[in-house]
Amino acid sequence: MLRWITAGESHGPALVAVLEGMPAGVEVTTDDLVAQLGRRRLGFGRSPRMGFEQDEVEILGGVRHGKTQGGPIAVTIGNSEWPKWQTVMSADPVDPSLLKPTGRNEALTRPRPGHADLPGMQKFGFDEARPVLERASARETAARTALGTVARQFLQQLLGVQILSHVVSIGKAETPEDAALPTPDDLAAIDESPTRCFDARGTEAMVAEVEAVKEAGDTVGGVIEVLAYGLPPGLGSHVHWDRRLDARLAAALMGVQAMKGVEIGDGFTSARRWGSQAHDEIDRGSGPVGVTRRSNRAGGLEGGITNGEILRARVAMKPISTVPRALSTVDVRTGEPAVAIHQRSDVCAVPRAGVVLESVVALVLAEAALEKFGGDSLDETRRNAHAYLKALEARWEGM
Amino acid sequence: MLRWITAGESHGPALVAVLEGMPAGVEVTTDDLVAQLGRRRLGFGRSPRMGFEQDEVEILGGVRHGKTQGGPIAVTIGNSEWPKWQTVMSADPVDPSLLKPTGRNEALTRPRPGHADLPGMQKFGFDEARPVLERASARETAARTALGTVARQFLQQLLGVQILSHVVSIGKAETPEDAALPTPDDLAAIDESPTRCFDARGTEAMVAEVEAVKEAGDTVGGVIEVLAYGLPPGLGSHVHWDRRLDARLAAALMGVQAMKGVEIGDGFTSARRWGSQAHDEIDRGSGPVGVTRRSNRAGGLEGGITNGEILRARVAMKPISTVPRALSTVDVRTGEPAVAIHQRSDVCAVPRAGVVLESVVALVLAEAALEKFGGDSLDETRRNAHAYLKALEARWEGM
Amino acid sequence: MLRWITAGESHGPALVAVLEGMPAGVEVTTDDLVAQLGRRRLGFGRSPRMGFEQDEVEILGGVRHGKTQGGPIAVTIGNSEWPKWQTVMSADPVDPSLLKPTGRNEALTRPRPGHADLPGMQKFGFDEARPVLERASARETAARTALGTVARQFLQQLLGVQILSHVVSIGKAETPEDAALPTPDDLAAIDESPTRCFDARGTEAMVAEVEAVKEAGDTVGGVIEVLAYGLPPGLGSHVHWDRRLDARLAAALMGVQAMKGVEIGDGFTSARRWGSQAHDEIDRGSGPVGVTRRSNRAGGLEGGITNGEILRARVAMKPISTVPRALSTVDVRTGEPAVAIHQRSDVCAVPRAGVVLESVVALVLAEAALEKFGGDSLDETRRNAHAYLKALEARWEGM
Amino acid sequence: MLRWITAGESHGPALVAVLEGMPAGVEVTTDDLVAQLGRRRLGFGRSPRMGFEQDEVEILGGVRHGKTQGGPIAVTIGNSEWPKWQTVMSADPVDPSLLKPTGRNEALTRPRPGHADLPGMQKFGFDEARPVLERASARETAARTALGTVARQFLQQLLGVQILSHVVSIGKAETPEDAALPTPDDLAAIDESPTRCFDARGTEAMVAEVEAVKEAGDTVGGVIEVLAYGLPPGLGSHVHWDRRLDARLAAALMGVQAMKGVEIGDGFTSARRWGSQAHDEIDRGSGPVGVTRRSNRAGGLEGGITNGEILRARVAMKPISTVPRALSTVDVRTGEPAVAIHQRSDVCAVPRAGVVLESVVALVLAEAALEKFGGDSLDETRRNAHAYLKALEARWEGM
Repeated sequence: MLRWITAGESHGPALVAVLEGMPAGVEVTTDDLVAQLGRRRLGFGRSPRMGFEQDEVEILGGVRHGKTQGGPIAVTIGNSEWPKWQTVMSADPVDPSLLKPTGRNEALTRPRPGHADLPGMQKFGFDEARPVLERASARETAARTALGTVARQFLQQLLGVQILSHVVSIGKAETPEDAALPTPDDLAAIDESPTRCFDARGTEAMVAEVEAVKEAGDTVGGVIEVLAYGLPPGLGSHVHWDRRLDARLAAALMGVQAMKGVEIGDGFTSARRWGSQAHDEIDRGSGPVGVTRRSNRAGGLEGGITNGEILRARVAMKPISTVPRALSTVDVRTGEPAVAIHQRSDVCAVPRAGVVLESVVALVLAEAALEKFGGDSLDETRRNAHAYLKALEARWEGM
Repeated sequence: MLRWITAGESHGPALVAVLEGMPAGVEVTTDDLVAQLGRRRLGFGRSPRMGFEQDEVEILGGVRHGKTQGGPIAVTIGNSEWPKWQTVMSADPVDPSLLKPTGRNEALTRPRPGHADLPGMQKFGFDEARPVLERASARETAARTALGTVARQFLQQLLGVQILSHVVSIGKAETPEDAALPTPDDLAAIDESPTRCFDARGTEAMVAEVEAVKEAGDTVGGVIEVLAYGLPPGLGSHVHWDRRLDARLAAALMGVQAMKGVEIGDGFTSARRWGSQAHDEIDRGSGPVGVTRRSNRAGGLEGGITNGEILRARVAMKPISTVPRALSTVDVRTGEPAVAIHQRSDVCAVPRAGVVLESVVALVLAEAALEKFGGDSLDETRRNAHAYLKALEARWEGM
Repeated sequence: MLRWITAGESHGPALVAVLEGMPAGVEVTTDDLVAQLGRRRLGFGRSPRMGFEQDEVEILGGVRHGKTQGGPIAVTIGNSEWPKWQTVMSADPVDPSLLKPTGRNEALTRPRPGHADLPGMQKFGFDEARPVLERASARETAARTALGTVARQFLQQLLGVQILSHVVSIGKAETPEDAALPTPDDLAAIDESPTRCFDARGTEAMVAEVEAVKEAGDTVGGVIEVLAYGLPPGLGSHVHWDRRLDARLAAALMGVQAMKGVEIGDGFTSARRWGSQAHDEIDRGSGPVGVTRRSNRAGGLEGGITNGEILRARVAMKPISTVPRALSTVDVRTGEPAVAIHQRSDVCAVPRAGVVLESVVALVLAEAALEKFGGDSLDETRRNAHAYLKALEARWEGM
Repeated sequence: MLRWITAGESHGPALVAVLEGMPAGVEVTTDDLVAQLGRRRLGFGRSPRMGFEQDEVEILGGVRHGKTQGGPIAVTIGNSEWPKWQTVMSADPVDPSLLKPTGRNEALTRPRPGHADLPGMQKFGFDEARPVLERASARETAARTALGTVARQFLQQLLGVQILSHVVSIGKAETPEDAALPTPDDLAAIDESPTRCFDARGTEAMVAEVEAVKEAGDTVGGVIEVLAYGLPPGLGSHVHWDRRLDARLAAALMGVQAMKGVEIGDGFTSARRWGSQAHDEIDRGSGPVGVTRRSNRAGGLEGGITNGEILRARVAMKPISTVPRALSTVDVRTGEPAVAIHQRSDVCAVPRAGVVLESVVALVLAEAALEKFGGDSLDETRRNAHAYLKALEARWEGM
C-alpha cells in the first residue's frame, strides 16, 4: 500500500504533502523536488503569479542524508506571499477589526462557472467561495508534484523507468499526426518548447493559438500525453476492477484539477476502428520478455496490466475557468445576476500541467510496482523485480 | 464506505458478487436483478453465446422479503453450461485421465492481442491463458450489473435519481450532433433500438456499420454515454483528489473490460475550446437549489462535485479483441508464430455494454451519496438528504 | 492488499465468503476447508445445533484443479436447514398469508443483553431483532474460517508457517502456570481434549467448570491463546500505526463475535512488571536470522514487527449471551419488562472458537507476508521470501 | 472516511500530522492543540527530555479563523532541539567530514530488547538502529494527540461527547476495586494526580511503586482506562468485522507504542464469569433512547455497536524498554554480546500515555460518527445526528 495525501490552501502558509509506504534507500534530495517544481512553472502564457511563486520546499520527515528511511515522507512547500495573507488566512481567530470586508478578505459571493465555487459552497454550507477555492486551487498540484518526484526517483532507481509528457494540442492547434513519439532523451527539448510540444510545427501552431487567445482576452485548454518507458509486463491486474492499472491511472489523471478526459493508448480513436486494425499483433522479439508488438494502440496496457510496451495516456484539460472576460453568475448574497469573481490566472496552463500528470502517473506506477514486487528497501524491491524479469526470460529461452 | 467485490470465472459454476455497506430498507428483488441482467443481452450483433446464457440469479444474503437488511448483499449468477465445464473448471483436483489435452481442456498457448492473455500469463507465471481469460472475460460484468442494480434502486428510492445510457457511435457511425439528449422516459425506446441509439438516423447508420463489419469478418467498437438525472449538488469533493467524483467515475468506467477512454461532459471537446465557450454560465433559477446553468458542458461536475445538472460521461469501448479474422501472435509453448486462439465472440458488444456502465456509475454515486448523507437505513439516509436539500432551498429563499 | 469479505445470514440459504488478493498456485481443496470447518464443531458443551450444521462447502471461484488462480476465491457454505427457513428468510417478498406471526417468523421484540440486538435495532431502525441477530450470529465465523484456511495453506506453503490455538482458561478453571507451550505437533492432541486444553490437569478442571455451569443452567467464557510458528522477522511495521502487526491482529481478533480482550505476548501481565523483567534479552544464535531471545514475553512482536520468535496472542471470550436462565430486558413493542428471547445455544463456545481465531490470524499474517514479499504466484512470493531470508543470513555471517 | 496520517522522526525538524475527512465548521485553535499536548507531559516520573520538549505547534492547513474548512487539516510540531540535530538528521546529504562517528551520529549497533530496533533493522536492511528508533519513538504520539484533539472537539461540538482517561494500575499498585468511575468533571482532578489516578489511595500506592522502581534503576508499566461519555447508540456495526467498533478501537489502542493489551468493558474478567453475571440487563429508562442497563460490563459496546452506555476500554502498557539498568543484546557490527544502547528515558510513561489513548479513541469515534451521520459541515452532521436521536425517542414514546 502506497498512500499520498496533501493538505494546505492556496494562500495559506504552506502546502503539506505526505507519502506513506515508500521503501527505504531511495535516493532523493530537496534539489530533486525543486527541479520538478520548477518544471511546474514552465511554458508560455504564464501568469504573473508564477513569477513570485518561490517555492520554499522543505523535507520534514522520511529522508535522511539523501535517502528515504522507510517511514512517511513529509514535505512542505512554503508560500512566499504568506505575510500578505496571514491575517486573512490565519488558522487562529483574528481580531475582527483587522478583517476588513475589502481586498484580500472580501467575501467571494459571485461563484465562477467551471470551478468548485458554487457546488462547494452548497456542499459545505459556506456563504462565500473563499474556503472552497483556497483548497480547490491548482496550487495544490505542487504538493502532488513533490510526492510524485519521490515516486519517479524510486521507479528510475528500481528498473530505469522514465516518465515524460508532451503537449499534443492547445485549442485547435495540434501536433501533426506524423510527429515522432518523444523518448526520455527528448525531455529537455520538450521543456524548452514554450508550449512543451515536441514537434516544431506543433509548437508554432500552438504559440499562434495562445497568442490569439490572449489577444481575445480568453483562455484555452489542450491535450497532454504522458509516457512511461521501461515498465516490466505484469503491473496492475485483470482480476478485479480496482486493481486494473487503467482504472487507477484514469482516477489519478482525472483527479487533477481541470482534467475532463482520459484515454489509454488510442482511446477514443480505438472506438472508431474495426477490430482487425485496433490491436497490437505479437511477434517473437528480443529483450527481457521475449516478444514485441507490431504497434502500441493499446498504450502498453492489456486487460489492465502492463504488457512491456510504452505506457501511453492522453488527458484533456479544459480552459482555465477564470476567464479574463468574466462569465455570468449569481451573487449568492443577493440572488442578483453578477459577473464572476476574477482571480489572477493564466491564459493557458496546459504546458505546465504536464509535470503534474507525470507525477500522478509516477505515484500510481510506484504503487503497482510495490504491489507486485513488495520489499521494504530499494535493494529488496529491486532484487525481487530482477528475479521476476529473469524468470520471464528463462521461460522464453526454454522454448 | 461502500464496497463491491466480484468473484468467479467465465466458465466456472457461478459468478459471485458482494455489496457491503448498503443501508437497510432498500427495496430490491431477484426480478429487479434479472431485468437488468436481461438488458445486458440487448442489441444487434449478439453472439450465440448470449442465447444460452440463462442467468440463474440467486440472492444469498443481505435481503429479506424484498428489502435490504443492512448486512452485505450476496448474489450468485449460475452458469447454465456448467455441466459441460465441470471437469475442466473443477475447483478440486480431477483424475488426470479425465482431462484430455483437447477440446475444452486444451492448453491456450496462443495469446490474443488486446486481451489480458499474455501479460496475465507473464504476471502470474502461467503456461497458458486459460486461468487469465476465465477471469478477465466480460462475463464478470454480469456480477457488477447485479450489484449496480441494488445501487440504482437505492438512488431511485433515495432521491429519485435515474441512470440511463445510450450509444453515441459505433465505429464511424455516429448519432447526429443535433440529436436530443435522452431522458429517463426514453430508456425503453433506447433499449428497443438494435444499437441502443436514441436517434433513428443514428440507429440506421450504426446498423449499417455493424452489418459491414460482420460481412468483413471483423469487430467494431463505439462510444456510450451514461447519464444520471436527479442528483443533488454536493456529491464528491474538491478537497482531496481521491474524493473527486470525476476521478472515481473515471476509475469505475475505465475499470470495465474493453474501455479505453472516459470523458466527463464535453471532455476532449472542451480541450479544443476557448474558456469563454467552455463553461456553464449561472442564472438564478427555480428548483430546489435556486440556480440553473445555461449549458452543461461540464457534465454536471465542477471541481469534482455534482452541481445539480445532469451527470454526463462518455466512454470509449474498443472493438472486441477476439477478431474472427484471427490476429498474429506467438505460441508460447514453442515460440513460433501463430494465429491467436479464437473464443466465441460478438461482432459488436457496444449496445449491451451500456447497462454495465450504468451499473458502475450507480455504485459510485451510491457511495458518494452515503458519504454525504450517512445513514444506516433508507429512511435515515433519505431524512438526511431531504434536510440538506431543504437547507439549500432556505438559503436561497432568504436572499 | 488482501481483502476478505463475508455475507449471509445465520438462517439464510448460505454464507458467502470472498478472499481477494491471494497469489496463484496455492494448493487448496474443498476437503481442506471442510476439515477446518469440522474443527469449528469441536469441544465439550456443544449445542444440538452443531449436530445438524452439515456444512455444504462449495468453492465457486478462484481455484482450479486444487490450485488458486490469482483471482478472488469465493466459497459458499450452505445451510442444511434452509428448507425450514425458506419462507421466513426468503430474499424475495412472500405471500403474507404464508408468514404467520408465530414460530420461526415471530417478531423478536425482546432484545437479549450482551448481543447486538438492541443497539442494532436502534442503529438500523428495525422493529425487531431478527435482521440483526441473523447477521450478528457466530455462524458467520464459518465464512472467515473457510477463507482463513486458504490463508493458512498459503503461509504453510510459503514458509512452513503453522498456526494453532489452545484454551488456557474456561471460567475460573485455568491451565497450570507450568504447562508447556504447545507446538504444531500437538494440535491433534489439543483437538482431542474436550476443552481444547493442552494440559491434562487443565482439561480436567475445565471439564468440571463446564459441568457445573451446565448444571446451573448458565454459560461460561474463557481465554484462548493463538500461536504462529515459523514466521520470519520483518512482518508488520513500526512506521505507521495501521501497519503495526499488533494493531492489525488486535482488530482481527477483537472483531470475532464475543471477544472482549486481546493481549500480545504477556499483555496485561507485562503491565504489572518492571522493565528489567519485561523484555526479551538477545543472544547470538543459530538459525536463519542469527539471534535468539532468552524469553518471549513480547509474544514475537517488537515495535509492531515480527521478531522471529513464536507469535503469541491471547483472547478473552465472554460467556454466550443467550443464557438459558433468561436475562431481564424490555419488550420493544410494549415497553414492558420482559425476559430476553432465547435462541438455542451452547453452554461454552470457547473450545471451538480457537479455529476461528487461528483463521483470522492467518488472514492478517498472509496480508503482512504479501506486503513484505509481493508476488502474484506462490513461486514468486516464495522466491522473494527466500531471497530475503538468505540476505539476512548473509548479513550475520559476515560479522 | 476519516484518515489520519503522521510523519516525522523523533529528532527531525518537526512532526507532521494530517487529518483528512473532517467536516467544516468545527471550532479548533492552536491553543486547543497545545493544551492537549501539554497534558502529554503530565505525570510523575518524567524524564528531563520532557522539560525541553517545547512543542512548537503550527496549523498549516484546513483551519481558518478558528474553524475547520472541510479540507485536510495539517499540523506541524517543531523540535526545539533541532539545531543540535540538523547535521545528523539532515534530509539532504551532508559533507561526510561533518559526520563524526561519535556522539549524536554514532551508529546504534546494539539493538534494545523490547523495541523495534532489531526487527526494524532486519526488515529494512539497515546496519544500525537510528533509522528505526527515530520513527518508532513515542514522540510520534504527539502528532496523533494533535489530530485527536480536532476529533474530540468535533465530538464535543456534535453531541457533547467527552473523552477522558485515568490510570488504574502502575506495576502492582492498583486503584482500589471500590473506587468510583471518574466522569468528565473529574478530568482536572485526575490530571493533578502525579500518576493520573482518580483515587487518592491508588495515587499513593502508585507513587510508592514508581519511587521503588526509580530507586532500583528500573522502569514500570501499567494499565490505563479510557472512557467516553455521551455517545449515542448505533456507532460501529455488527454487519462486518472491520466495521465493529471494538475491532477498530482495539487496532487504534494497540497501535500506540508500548501497548500490549486491550480490553473492552470487563474484558478478561468477563472471560472468568458465568453468563448470568456477565451481561447488562435492560430496563425501561428515561433519556433519549428509552432504556437503561443495570450494569456496564460490556463497556458500552454490544455486537461491536455503541449501546448508549459509557464506552470503557482498558489498555496495558509495558514498561519502557530502555531500562537504565541495561539489557543484554548483540552488537550487530561484530556479532559479540553487548549491552543495549541507552536512550534517555523515563521511569514510567503510564500517566502521560492517557492523553494519547484518549486521542486515538477520539479519532475512531469521530470516524464512526461520520459514517453514521454523514455531513460535510458540523451543522449538517449535527442536524442528522439530532434527527436520528429524535427518531429513536419517538419510537419509544409510541410504545
